[in-house]
Amino acid sequence: MSAVKLEEFRERIRKELDTTVDFWLQHSHDPLHGGFFTCLGRDGEVYDELKYVWLQGRQVWMYCRLYRTMDRFHRPEILEAAKAGGAFLRKFTRVPGAGSGPWKCAFSLTRDGKAVKIQRTIFSECFYILAMDELSRVTGDKGMQLEAEQMMEQLISWVREDPAGLGRPQLPGDVPTNKVVQKYTELVSWCVQQILQHIQRGGTAILENVSVDGAELPGCQGRLQNPGHALEAGWFLLQVSAQQKDEALQRTAIDKFMELPYQNGWDKEHGGLFYFLDVDGHCPTQLEWNMKLWWPHCEALIAFLMAYSHTREPALLHRFSEVFEYTFKHFPDAQKGEWFGYLTQEGKVALDFKGGPFKGFFHVPRCLYMCERILDDMLANKD
Amino acid sequence: MSAVKLEEFRERIRKELDTTVDFWLQHSHDPLHGGFFTCLGRDGEVYDELKYVWLQGRQVWMYCRLYRTMDRFHRPEILEAAKAGGAFLRKFTRVPGAGSGPWKCAFSLTRDGKAVKIQRTIFSECFYILAMDELSRVTGDKGMQLEAEQMMEQLISWVREDPAGLGRPQLPGDVPTNKVVQKYTELVSWCVQQILQHIQRGGTAILENVSVDGAELPGCQGRLQNPGHALEAGWFLLQVSAQQKDEALQRTAIDKFMELPYQNGWDKEHGGLFYFLDVDGHCPTQLEWNMKLWWPHCEALIAFLMAYSHTREPALLHRFSEVFEYTFKHFPDAQKGEWFGYLTQEGKVALDFKGGPFKGFFHVPRCLYMCERILDDMLANKD
Repeated sequence: MSAVKLEEFRERIRKELDTTVDFWLQHSHDPLHGGFFTCLGRDGEVYDELKYVWLQGRQVWMYCRLYRTMDRFHRPEILEAAKAGGAFLRKFTRVPGAGSGPWKCAFSLTRDGKAVKIQRTIFSECFYILAMDELSRVTGDKGMQLEAEQMMEQLISWVREDPAGLGRPQLPGDVPTNKVVQKYTELVSWCVQQILQHIQRGGTAILENVSVDGAELPGCQGRLQNPGHALEAGWFLLQVSAQQKDEALQRTAIDKFMELPYQNGWDKEHGGLFYFLDVDGHCPTQLEWNMKLWWPHCEALIAFLMAYSHTREPALLHRFSEVFEYTFKHFPDAQKGEWFGYLTQEGKVALDFKGGPFKGFFHVPRCLYMCERILDDMLANKD
Repeated sequence: MSAVKLEEFRERIRKELDTTVDFWLQHSHDPLHGGFFTCLGRDGEVYDELKYVWLQGRQVWMYCRLYRTMDRFHRPEILEAAKAGGAFLRKFTRVPGAGSGPWKCAFSLTRDGKAVKIQRTIFSECFYILAMDELSRVTGDKGMQLEAEQMMEQLISWVREDPAGLGRPQLPGDVPTNKVVQKYTELVSWCVQQILQHIQRGGTAILENVSVDGAELPGCQGRLQNPGHALEAGWFLLQVSAQQKDEALQRTAIDKFMELPYQNGWDKEHGGLFYFLDVDGHCPTQLEWNMKLWWPHCEALIAFLMAYSHTREPALLHRFSEVFEYTFKHFPDAQKGEWFGYLTQEGKVALDFKGGPFKGFFHVPRCLYMCERILDDMLANKD
C-alpha cells in the first residue's frame, strides 16, 4: 500500500482524535468538584453524576499524555482539567476505612467524592497509578510520583504475593487465575511470561483465564476467549519485543496474539470482533458475547498498525485496513461526535451513549493517538 | 373468551411442563455427588460442571412442589433427585469460614462441593431456605425445617437490621437501597409496604431501586425499570390481596405492578418485554437492556392469568393472551425441548443453551405449573 493510503488513514484518524478530545473537553468536566463526568449521553448530556474511578484515572492519564507529547494538545485547559482530576482522585479515591489497608481504592464515587462501591480487584488502583505517574511527569510533583510508586508496590504485592487485602475470601474451589491484562512496566519479564501462559491448545488459541502455573482451567471460565484482550496484550508484547530486540517474541506477539484472535474472533458473517467466544464452540454464558464493542476494535487497530510498522509485512497492513474499514464505518457518530460503544452482532447501535460506567476518555483517544503517532513515524521515515 | 380457549391454553401449557420436567430429569442430575448440573447446552449436554447454589435450591424447591402437589409428578425419581439435591446443599453450601458468621452460603460450588464464589447478597441463602422448607414438607424432616427457620432469622436480620455480615464494606456514598424482590412469607405486611414503595413518579412507574424510606435515588440506579421484577412482585401482591381480602391492594397490584410494567416495558416494534429501561428514556447502561429474556415473560404469564382468575376482567385475559402468543412463539425449542432463555431485541436466539449460571429448573416450570393450576381451578369452577 502506498504512502498516499497511509496519509489517508492519518488524516481520518487525526480528525477523529480532535473531535473526540473536543467532545470530552466540552461535556465531561466538573467545574464544581473537579474530576470528570463519564456518563455522557449521545449529545454529551450528563445522565448520571457518579464518578467511576477507572475512568477518572484513565482520563487524567490520557490528558497528560496528549498534553505532554502532541503539540496541538499542549493547551492550558487540558492541563488544568488533568490537574483537577488528579486532585479529585487524591482527595477522595483511597478508602482506608474499608479494612483492606491504606491503599484500597473505591470503584465509584458520588459527584462530591463519597465512596459508593469498592471492587475486589486491582483495577481502580491500576488506573490511579497510571494517572499519578503521568501527571507527575507533567507537573514535576515528586510527592505524587512517590505515591504512585508506593501504590504500585502494594499492587505488586496483591498480585504476586497475597490477594487477601483485596477483600475476597479464600475459597477452596476458587482456582487462582491469571488474567491477561497485567501491565506493570517495572515487572516486564515477569509479565511477559504471565501473558505467554495464555497461549493454549497447542498454540492454536489465546485463553482469557489460565491457572497460575499456566494450565487450562475447567469449564466455561477456562474455555473463554476475549479477542480484544488478546490483541491488547499483543501490542504490549510487541513493544517489549522492540525494546528488547527479541525477534522470537515479536513473532509470537504477531502470530499468537494478533492473528489467532483475529482468526478466532472475527465475525465472518457480519464483520467485527466478537466480545467473548468459547474455544470449543459452546455458546458463552455472557449475555453480551456476540455484541461488537468499540474497545476490542481500538486494540486491534493499534496492534496491526504497530505490527506493520515493526515488520512492514503487507498482510498486517491489510488486516489493519480491514479492521479500520469496519470500525470507522460503524462506531463513529458522524452527527454528534465521538464513538458509539456497543453494537449488536449485526452492527446496529444497541446503546447510544458516548460514555458510561466502563466507557470514558480512554480507548478511543488512546487508539487514535497511538495510530497517529505510528503513522507519523512511518511517513517521516518512508523510503 | 370461551372455556375452549382456556382449555387450549392449558393443553399447551401442560405439554410444555411435561417436556421441561423430562429435559431436566434426563440431563441435569449428578449421580456421583448429588445436586444438579445447570449448565446444559441446547441438547442437554453439560458444558460446565459448576453448581450454582441459587439454581440448586430452586430445583429442589420446584421438584418438591411438583411431587407434593401434582399427581403426575408424584414419582420416586423426582423425590430422590430432590433429596440428593438437598443433601448436597446441606453438606457443602454453607461457608462458615468466610468471615460472615455461620450462615453465609456460597454462590457457586465445584461438582464435588468446594466453594468457588460468594456473593455479597442474600440470594443463595434465600433459595437455600426455599429448598429446605419445601423438602421438609415432603420428607417430614424436622431438623431440616428448623435449619430453614434459623437461616431465615439470619436473613431477616441482614435485611432489616444489619447487612454488615454479607461482607460489603459500609461506604458513605452507598445509599441503602430497597430491591423489589423481598419475599419472605413470614413478613408479609412489611414486605408489602416495601414493595409498594417502588411505585414512583406520581404512580406512573415502578422503579427497581428506591431508598429505604421510599424516595427516588439519583442517577441511573434510581431511574432503572425492570418490568419482569415488577410483574413478579405484582403476582406476589395479588396473592396477599386474596389472602387478606384486600380489594385496594388487588387494584394496586393489577394497575401498578402489571399494567404499568406492560405499558412501559413492552416493545411496540418487535414485541416482548425489555429487560431494563430508564424511566426518563435514557439508554440503560446494562449491555443486555434490550434483550428479551425468558423469565420476565414467565412472570407476566403468571401475573396476568392470576389477575384474570381473581377478577374475570376480560382485558387481563387479553393481556395474558398477548404475552402467551409472543412467549410460545419465541422461547420454546420445538426441536430439542425446553426453552431458549436469551433473545435479541428482534426475537432471534442470542444464547442457545437451556441452562446456565442464572437459568435453571425454575422460572419455566414454575410458570407452567402455576398457570396450569390456575386454569384447572377456573375450568373446574366455570359457569
